Amino acid sequence: MTELEKCMENLIMIFHRYAKEDGNGKTLNKKELKKLIENELPTFLKSQKNPKTVDCIMKDLDSNRDDQLDFEEFLPLVAGLSLACEKCYVLHELKGKK
Amino acid sequence: MTELEKCMENLIMIFHRYAKEDGNGKTLNKKELKKLIENELPTFLKSQKNPKTVDCIMKDLDSNRDDQLDFEEFLPLVAGLSLACEKCYVLHELKGKK
Repeated sequence: MTELEKCMENLIMIFHRYAKEDGNGKTLNKKELKKLIENELPTFLKSQKNPKTVDCIMKDLDSNRDDQLDFEEFLPLVAGLSLACEKCYVLHELKGKK
Repeated sequence: MTELEKCMENLIMIFHRYAKEDGNGKTLNKKELKKLIENELPTFLKSQKNPKTVDCIMKDLDSNRDDQLDFEEFLPLVAGLSLACEKCYVLHELKGKK
């Protein structure tokens, strides 16, 4: 398996590890999303001043308003954070070259 | 670093490994995209019957039509493939439970 394939497999496995914790095994409820963010994105969570961060994220991602996130609804969180990290990476690289 | 953080870091590093090959170091041109797909997504590429797969993907992803993909334009490829893989994974899991 290539590095990028492994990366995509990991995304799927991480999502489902939390999704299967309770209730509907294919989606994340707010409690499961909270646990995923606390365990998998602790640095991001600490950087957020709003104590309602998880509620806001849930509301933002839950496009069909069923209080559950399927994998498709979850992906924009990973995409958004990756993009933010990538912008930092590019800035850092530019600085390094000066 | 958590597994999800590592995953996002890998995405960024894979993109930039190919982006820096020639020309603008921050974006993928068609040649670099082709190399990335050939090396990182060989199974997907083999499954595509259309010999113009890479051209089609480039056209689909290049939203600002500058013949270059930045990381933001590249992300939907990873998201789309991950989503397709996840659908297969869920079907497979359901079958396993029967």
